[in-house]
Amino acid sequence: MSNQNPVFIPGPTNIPDRLRLAMQVQTQDHRAPDFVETFAPVLEDTKKVFATTSGKIVTFPASGTGGWEASVSNTLSPGDTVLVARYGMFSHRWIDLCQRHGLDVHIIDCPWGSGAPADKFAEVLADDRDHRIKAVLVTHNETATGVRSDIGAVRKSMDASSHPAMLFVDCVSSLASMPFEFDKWGVDIAVSGSQKGFMLATGMAILCVSPKALDAMEQARLPRTFFDFRDMMAANASGGFPYTPPLQLIYGMRESLKMLFEEGLDNVYARHFRLAEGVRKATAAWGLNLVAQSPDLYSDTVSAIYVPEGFDSNTLTDHAFNTYGVSFGIGLGEMNGKAFRIGHLGSLTDVMVLSGLATIEMSMADLDYPVELGSGVAAAQEYFRTSCANPMQSAA
Amino acid sequence: MSNQNPVFIPGPTNIPDRLRLAMQVQTQDHRAPDFVETFAPVLEDTKKVFATTSGKIVTFPASGTGGWEASVSNTLSPGDTVLVARYGMFSHRWIDLCQRHGLDVHIIDCPWGSGAPADKFAEVLADDRDHRIKAVLVTHNETATGVRSDIGAVRKSMDASSHPAMLFVDCVSSLASMPFEFDKWGVDIAVSGSQKGFMLATGMAILCVSPKALDAMEQARLPRTFFDFRDMMAANASGGFPYTPPLQLIYGMRESLKMLFEEGLDNVYARHFRLAEGVRKATAAWGLNLVAQSPDLYSDTVSAIYVPEGFDSNTLTDHAFNTYGVSFGIGLGEMNGKAFRIGHLGSLTDVMVLSGLATIEMSMADLDYPVELGSGVAAAQEYFRTSCANPMQSAA
Amino acid sequence: MSNQNPVFIPGPTNIPDRLRLAMQVQTQDHRAPDFVETFAPVLEDTKKVFATTSGKIVTFPASGTGGWEASVSNTLSPGDTVLVARYGMFSHRWIDLCQRHGLDVHIIDCPWGSGAPADKFAEVLADDRDHRIKAVLVTHNETATGVRSDIGAVRKSMDASSHPAMLFVDCVSSLASMPFEFDKWGVDIAVSGSQKGFMLATGMAILCVSPKALDAMEQARLPRTFFDFRDMMAANASGGFPYTPPLQLIYGMRESLKMLFEEGLDNVYARHFRLAEGVRKATAAWGLNLVAQSPDLYSDTVSAIYVPEGFDSNTLTDHAFNTYGVSFGIGLGEMNGKAFRIGHLGSLTDVMVLSGLATIEMSMADLDYPVELGSGVAAAQEYFRTSCANPMQSAA
Amino acid sequence: MSNQNPVFIPGPTNIPDRLRLAMQVQTQDHRAPDFVETFAPVLEDTKKVFATTSGKIVTFPASGTGGWEASVSNTLSPGDTVLVARYGMFSHRWIDLCQRHGLDVHIIDCPWGSGAPADKFAEVLADDRDHRIKAVLVTHNETATGVRSDIGAVRKSMDASSHPAMLFVDCVSSLASMPFEFDKWGVDIAVSGSQKGFMLATGMAILCVSPKALDAMEQARLPRTFFDFRDMMAANASGGFPYTPPLQLIYGMRESLKMLFEEGLDNVYARHFRLAEGVRKATAAWGLNLVAQSPDLYSDTVSAIYVPEGFDSNTLTDHAFNTYGVSFGIGLGEMNGKAFRIGHLGSLTDVMVLSGLATIEMSMADLDYPVELGSGVAAAQEYFRTSCANPMQSAA
Repeated sequence: MSNQNPVFIPGPTNIPDRLRLAMQVQTQDHRAPDFVETFAPVLEDTKKVFATTSGKIVTFPASGTGGWEASVSNTLSPGDTVLVARYGMFSHRWIDLCQRHGLDVHIIDCPWGSGAPADKFAEVLADDRDHRIKAVLVTHNETATGVRSDIGAVRKSMDASSHPAMLFVDCVSSLASMPFEFDKWGVDIAVSGSQKGFMLATGMAILCVSPKALDAMEQARLPRTFFDFRDMMAANASGGFPYTPPLQLIYGMRESLKMLFEEGLDNVYARHFRLAEGVRKATAAWGLNLVAQSPDLYSDTVSAIYVPEGFDSNTLTDHAFNTYGVSFGIGLGEMNGKAFRIGHLGSLTDVMVLSGLATIEMSMADLDYPVELGSGVAAAQEYFRTSCANPMQSAA
Repeated sequence: MSNQNPVFIPGPTNIPDRLRLAMQVQTQDHRAPDFVETFAPVLEDTKKVFATTSGKIVTFPASGTGGWEASVSNTLSPGDTVLVARYGMFSHRWIDLCQRHGLDVHIIDCPWGSGAPADKFAEVLADDRDHRIKAVLVTHNETATGVRSDIGAVRKSMDASSHPAMLFVDCVSSLASMPFEFDKWGVDIAVSGSQKGFMLATGMAILCVSPKALDAMEQARLPRTFFDFRDMMAANASGGFPYTPPLQLIYGMRESLKMLFEEGLDNVYARHFRLAEGVRKATAAWGLNLVAQSPDLYSDTVSAIYVPEGFDSNTLTDHAFNTYGVSFGIGLGEMNGKAFRIGHLGSLTDVMVLSGLATIEMSMADLDYPVELGSGVAAAQEYFRTSCANPMQSAA
Repeated sequence: MSNQNPVFIPGPTNIPDRLRLAMQVQTQDHRAPDFVETFAPVLEDTKKVFATTSGKIVTFPASGTGGWEASVSNTLSPGDTVLVARYGMFSHRWIDLCQRHGLDVHIIDCPWGSGAPADKFAEVLADDRDHRIKAVLVTHNETATGVRSDIGAVRKSMDASSHPAMLFVDCVSSLASMPFEFDKWGVDIAVSGSQKGFMLATGMAILCVSPKALDAMEQARLPRTFFDFRDMMAANASGGFPYTPPLQLIYGMRESLKMLFEEGLDNVYARHFRLAEGVRKATAAWGLNLVAQSPDLYSDTVSAIYVPEGFDSNTLTDHAFNTYGVSFGIGLGEMNGKAFRIGHLGSLTDVMVLSGLATIEMSMADLDYPVELGSGVAAAQEYFRTSCANPMQSAA
Repeated sequence: MSNQNPVFIPGPTNIPDRLRLAMQVQTQDHRAPDFVETFAPVLEDTKKVFATTSGKIVTFPASGTGGWEASVSNTLSPGDTVLVARYGMFSHRWIDLCQRHGLDVHIIDCPWGSGAPADKFAEVLADDRDHRIKAVLVTHNETATGVRSDIGAVRKSMDASSHPAMLFVDCVSSLASMPFEFDKWGVDIAVSGSQKGFMLATGMAILCVSPKALDAMEQARLPRTFFDFRDMMAANASGGFPYTPPLQLIYGMRESLKMLFEEGLDNVYARHFRLAEGVRKATAAWGLNLVAQSPDLYSDTVSAIYVPEGFDSNTLTDHAFNTYGVSFGIGLGEMNGKAFRIGHLGSLTDVMVLSGLATIEMSMADLDYPVELGSGVAAAQEYFRTSCANPMQSAA
């Protein structure tokens, strides 16, 4: 039933052996000194991936959705206003979460395939003279559309009117795969998870929190216990956890950070760009279009690709799975039926990507797509071979 | 630094090899048919462990604390009254959670070492003629004191005045180790986790929810998204998950259930009783006292044992860890310094328990406790060897 | 340094997760009943893979070379004559072994790329009227050249003169990947290993021995202890081992057999043919030639492919390894520098094969081979997609 | 069926998690540079464990028996005389091997429980004026009797008459657990394996060979191929292997050496002595006798213990296995029925040893042995707690 083919979903990623082994930890006493010695450096090292010195790392045994909830419930009060642009499934879900938690959400609806509208943010914020907007929420990498937004531009749009709102960024599917600048971009809370760029199993929400967000925490009246920053930080400070910690993921995180630093974060980002570019070359060779509207928005972790008119993307992904045993991302939300997605993040090589391209190409041929067999693969091969500067550049 | 000695903390438990292997799952597409086929039977089989046919199983990628939060936030509204007895650290923490979430908590303070006060519950409930109390919250096994409460008696105390309050039970450290009767006891929400009787890694909160609690959900106004029952049940119904599922734990859970059913739940309970009884025989031989006030309260998953006057239990557990590399539970809360705890749950054998008893005995001798070396071990040996009906009775 | 790319060497194969887990066995007492219950069925089930009911399975903790030595030292005496054809590295090595052990080896030298010369065997055997030849040694699948010989034809050549010599077959790189007929072909000793079709780690020689070979054992005077059939069979008969058994491989073997039978041996063979055929289509599209001289000799587990005149195959395989992190088989012996090899056996899918083809294609382009980028991949894709009868046909 | 109890057989040992993980290596190309970089340092570091600078390390994918065969077949010729004392099962088996390989074995029969008779060796060697004896074969640690012989004394007995015979030592169950001095003792070939002091799976014979033995190789006429030193050393010299190497064990060996060096070889030896001494204290407290005749012969890796008159040791070990799920060593050969064995080597702690002692004690009580329950455990506890100098001294 199962096989050893890689998955091409945009996370959870293929887990490298090294991390599978690292997570195979027998139970240890999380109240013993070993745990402290393991956990504290993990928190410290994770800051490097967020590119922060001022932020605090807070983790929870939860998924990214839990991280979103933590960001909101620790810093805001019922009735608070937040500003969010909706341009994909994940920005949509964060909005939904805010509404369920009694926030007043100012929504800017944008076409799927576009990114965070810095200019519109600037307008709305400039108009908000009495600073009712407490936070701007942005999805850095919209996994549903393969769009990466410019967080630096969002920050500028906020600075333009010197608006004091906090900036919350969902970087679940971008962190540790594409550059992220917590300090430089003035992010207040960044939310990520263990199962994407960190290449681990699902189960740990990883947040970075600015001093400003910690101040906001003092007045925040949304209820929280499991996701309480204060409890977590207090326990962490003495090397503990307010409840049972996810030991296996913490050991996995330690090894993941080692892997990332051994390769070098810049090399990790360059590798992701190169793999993504290969996929984009193939897409062009097929004559297909990306959902992302323009090159500046192209994500290096996932490509959402429109199928031609008259075809159903779900049939394509089902066929690839049922016939060749390979999983690709389905089209989500508005893109359901219209686009399929190729995840190209985490522990992946050009060689593995080529097998994914070859598979989806066969699937398209099987379903009579107007696509020439081998064309996408050849385009990616040509790009990969000519862009391959470093021998053995591949991730572990 | 690390060694292969078992841990004697009251969870997370020693993870059996079989479950460590089962959790070593490479990433699979959680939107693919395989996942549905794996997950649905897990939910169904888990009901057997709760002894329910009417309840629904709901899981979250979280710890038991997250399970508590889910129980409260899905069924109650700000200002609602709940009735809780406080007789240990975990009942205390649940109270704290309720208060943070804006509930009005009617607290019955009881001495640590006692159990849920069914008679006092009966009084309070009888007095609550306009039924302001929406839920009674009970900790089945108070891990801090080694006390198991009589949930059937609590149910009777509620029935005595035909009070309509819901009954919520924390069975984190009892489920799958001691008998639990969701249907028979009329429980409305039971909260457990992956890392105790299920012998898995930490990271999955496991709840059982009655139809009555599901009805209450319709009016409940506490905010929740990550822990929303409705989202989870809707996604589960079609074989999915509202966000990324903890794949490794789900596969682990499937194998854990197999192990439990292969041994037979009654045999699992009998084994836990036998191991606990061995520890209690040793305790008596040492001339020490359990924190649990009377035999009907003795927990079969953890024993909290008072150190003699003039000794500090933390020194004892530190010594055992530093000198012999064995972890025991420290005294929590009121018991800090006064009692240590021996966890005896999960995948454990009499042989392993004897090594724990021998170790703590050496530690007591090292610290000049008035305890005869070998006495506790011999008492446990005598009990184990005479109570050993079935050859190869040991858990996997 | 390491990555998750598959290897394309002709064994050891990529080990499927399921078998990696199966081999993760903690030490058990090999003198305890568990071992007997595990090992005896493994021996029995292995017969099915050899297609024998009359043969006995004998295993040693050794490599295939050890298996060769066992075949010779258990059945022959110093000075005995054996007949062997040399048409590749592995037939050459077996000859060398015989000579070192004092046998008189009648060698028939054949061109590399040809197979076992049944007609020449027939001649030599017909001439050997006083039956000095005690055994005919044949390499079923010559891993160095990608040639599969016709063992049935060899048997016929022996039967033609009713020659009583034993027939020994090296099926190290064919068993469990291509059809093998121990009984039907009248094989007397077949030698295989754990690390090829069985998809396990290296370390177990697996032999099948006919009653006739067991008779020969009674007179055989070559010394042997470690590899003694009699000791092994006697110990095995009571569920034991004459020395410490390779427990992990035995458990691995048990699971490997399960996997093979679940897929069905015929499906396993068909899958290997299909993957091999895809590689051959690619080879043709590149305009390159196989070392195997004719289609009837094509191996379904490994293809040896000549590089064009003026190119060095070692440069090619080094480049693929150093630039793309993928291992292919180098040219061995006479083929060194002239041919490279693609291993396509064990737990492999069409999707994985395509990544290998894409990689070697890029490497050829990098080194200015007269090969069109994408051509081989497209040819294999076209074959794979049109020959793909069963959805999810891929091996585990 | 299986459980997590430690085994107390004298090897294979309980495999520590760290080594189980280290052996979980996916297939790599053993002809690629990675392999060279891994394997060469392993060979070099292994010398430290043999305490040699002059010796060469040679490994084979085989068990210790294969190592014995290699020692003999690489250095001797049919008809050569070797001198061996027989004082247990393993010395007996080595004699048998020599005889099967056509050697003339001068046997000195000694009582089981005694060690290598240096004085008798001296006599025989002094009498052998024309130096027909080519090698003296000694079992350092006789696993069947728990006797460690004095190899230094054997060397002196050889030097007394300046006899040029080689000295071969079986250190399978002593190396990496008790001090071994290859150079100082003038050993010519020492034979060990992966599954004892190295704490790995079974499957690698590990030999150390002196320059003198390598010289002898030039004239040696016993046939060998699989076990040929020259082939192995030639291949190793260029980082290769003459056939498929046992990759997983080589990676395991690398990590095992790391573990041994991290703990420090002297600490490893001291730990083994301490664990053994605890077992001996228990034995004395039970009023039972060791098979080893005197304290200077006591092995630190295994204790063979006589059961009282009228009892059958097999009944005892069967009972311990069937009732408590713990494996002890049975009495081998002459000791069958008369003695049982407790293995105390490898990755073991005092805590684990106590569980073994407690178990065998219960078993003896069950079978009405005249042994006081708890007596042996208490004696070992008292020794362990007073001899415990270093906190966290336990091996990983």
